[in-house]
Amino acid sequence: MKSKAVFYHAGCPVCVSAEQSVLGALDTGRFDVEIVHLGTDPARISEAEKLGIKSVPALALDGQAFHINFGASLSDLK
Amino acid sequence: MKSKAVFYHAGCPVCVSAEQSVLGALDTGRFDVEIVHLGTDPARISEAEKLGIKSVPALALDGQAFHINFGASLSDLK
Repeated sequence: MKSKAVFYHAGCPVCVSAEQSVLGALDTGRFDVEIVHLGTDPARISEAEKLGIKSVPALALDGQAFHINFGASLSDLK
Repeated sequence: MKSKAVFYHAGCPVCVSAEQSVLGALDTGRFDVEIVHLGTDPARISEAEKLGIKSVPALALDGQAFHINFGASLSDLK
């Protein structure tokens, strides 16, 4: 069974860069990758918060949150 | 030819977590992975700084720097 990678972003330049490079570098043979745009899908902000995510872009690997550089605070997306 | 991924860390708990999860998720079929411990190899701090790295853990993908969460400032490692 594959592990789950969820990339949370808000369309910001820092987000796009992280998506192209870091997300693009993941082993998709081992990870199912989902991309969530919290700007257009704000209903999932609470899900991100529960994972401990404070800012985007962020990558959750099997539920463990990793902030990648800094694009925007989650609080600014509400 | 493979791309180059360099993971800079300082042995901190945040670093270890990022190494195990994020670095472990990379596609090693496409990336040659190098791990640099700036605490034990301070001669490479200037190399990290040139890439724009301000803190560890950080991942450089083909020379592009991505800070992953926050463990320690580079300035604290000098």
